[in-house]
Amino acid sequence: MEAVDRLIHLLEQAAARGAELAVFPEMALTTFFPRWNLNDDAEIAGYYESQFPGPQTQLLCDAARKLKTGFALGYSESVEEGGRVRRFNTMALVGQDGELIGRYRKMHIPGSESPEEGTTVHLERRYFEPGNLGFPVFAYRGVRVGLALCNDRRWPETWRMLCLNGAQVVLVGYNTPVLLDEAPALAHLRMFHNHLPMQAGAYQNTVWIAASAKAGLEEGQALLGGSCIIAPSGEIASLASSVGDEVITHRADLDLIATCQRVNFDFARYRRPSEYALISERAGPLE
Amino acid sequence: MEAVDRLIHLLEQAAARGAELAVFPEMALTTFFPRWNLNDDAEIAGYYESQFPGPQTQLLCDAARKLKTGFALGYSESVEEGGRVRRFNTMALVGQDGELIGRYRKMHIPGSESPEEGTTVHLERRYFEPGNLGFPVFAYRGVRVGLALCNDRRWPETWRMLCLNGAQVVLVGYNTPVLLDEAPALAHLRMFHNHLPMQAGAYQNTVWIAASAKAGLEEGQALLGGSCIIAPSGEIASLASSVGDEVITHRADLDLIATCQRVNFDFARYRRPSEYALISERAGPLE
Repeated sequence: MEAVDRLIHLLEQAAARGAELAVFPEMALTTFFPRWNLNDDAEIAGYYESQFPGPQTQLLCDAARKLKTGFALGYSESVEEGGRVRRFNTMALVGQDGELIGRYRKMHIPGSESPEEGTTVHLERRYFEPGNLGFPVFAYRGVRVGLALCNDRRWPETWRMLCLNGAQVVLVGYNTPVLLDEAPALAHLRMFHNHLPMQAGAYQNTVWIAASAKAGLEEGQALLGGSCIIAPSGEIASLASSVGDEVITHRADLDLIATCQRVNFDFARYRRPSEYALISERAGPLE
Repeated sequence: MEAVDRLIHLLEQAAARGAELAVFPEMALTTFFPRWNLNDDAEIAGYYESQFPGPQTQLLCDAARKLKTGFALGYSESVEEGGRVRRFNTMALVGQDGELIGRYRKMHIPGSESPEEGTTVHLERRYFEPGNLGFPVFAYRGVRVGLALCNDRRWPETWRMLCLNGAQVVLVGYNTPVLLDEAPALAHLRMFHNHLPMQAGAYQNTVWIAASAKAGLEEGQALLGGSCIIAPSGEIASLASSVGDEVITHRADLDLIATCQRVNFDFARYRRPSEYALISERAGPLE
């Protein structure tokens, strides 16, 4: 599988630079097929992994073990749960020993079930259920690591839930098209709207973020890129500078988390959870 | 009172530019006295307004009526509630008719009750209780307007609560010192940390924000300034360019709210409130 070969090559580059943990994009094993209005069940099924690691991803896990560099990988997951096949947009976290540490299933599924007039075709809600594992945080070499996928990054609740679950580092995989048919007037803001909620998420929750994007042309669709590593100060510490295969690295100072908390974010002292009930009660404003 | 004269003069400038609504800073009638370790009860009491409008602020309300330009004004409120005197860091919203529409009491009170070693003296928690009116939204000429004060802007819950309560416009008053004794390494980020959570708040909640700061020297302390008007796209649409008395204006296109919602933020469709319970249950991460 060509994709796995590319991922292994990127992991080798990361390890050679001293990286101890890597993150790959959302749906890194296949094309971003929600851009297509597919109706052939067999064709659709071909995009999902029914096991992890499977025959191909085992090669990536083997590379991680050899390189002593764990990774997070986005893929389309098919699983039998409760007597039926369920499909999730998933990210797996693999340790330095090449073993699966845990998985996250994308909580916020954007787009629609069917094409909607005047908008870019984006059928994630046809191909995936919203995740059913909450916002888990895993131990990776003593560091608490959370995962998020693409649209999740736009919602402040993603970051806050990961923060309250104790995350110090959040790994994000994403796929974002450059074009935006539904609002041409906002098209120039695509990269700003990529980085803004992540920079705020890092700052407001005092976490390090490493976000990995597909970039460049995929099946004729231009993808945004803009992969970055963001400090708990909200600053972009490292930023991709191409739309090709590219490795960026940064040595994350975890002590900066406590420094940032000291300035503004002593959560236990200042937050007022009982005043936020509506956030967990109501999806949108009343009409 | 010199402060009220300055405010009236600024309101006149705003009205002359066609402004229909103005916002003044937090604690606009007095100095930002939480920078002082005060123990004289009479001296402390002198900083609070026990009625609104009072003799001085009535002059400002009269000006609003004459100019047909309402305003939000931050002030220190002293009120007898439940048989005792309570003190809040408050913002009043006044209509074009000069009448009080409603008030907001700052929900997130930063700082401490007593000076803490190694940090800038900031005793807001001595002088004010956390607000007890939630995150109200008021009708101002058919537009739904929410209010927030200073530290509130750093918490994503402030913006989300106002969004869920239906806000289209949020008026913010703030006082932020330039210096940051507790983290010199972050000192260069003061303006970035001012704008970042507001730009994200505007974007993630599709609201217009107008934020008004004290600026320049006040009793020897340099205040940050950076007053701005932010679009629901997260873009800064207007920005103060001085640390003196300065009026900035912008004609806010409320239709942009629906455009921004269409792109990413159909709240009712995509948010997952039942998955966010922890946000309203736990103040900080478990140790």
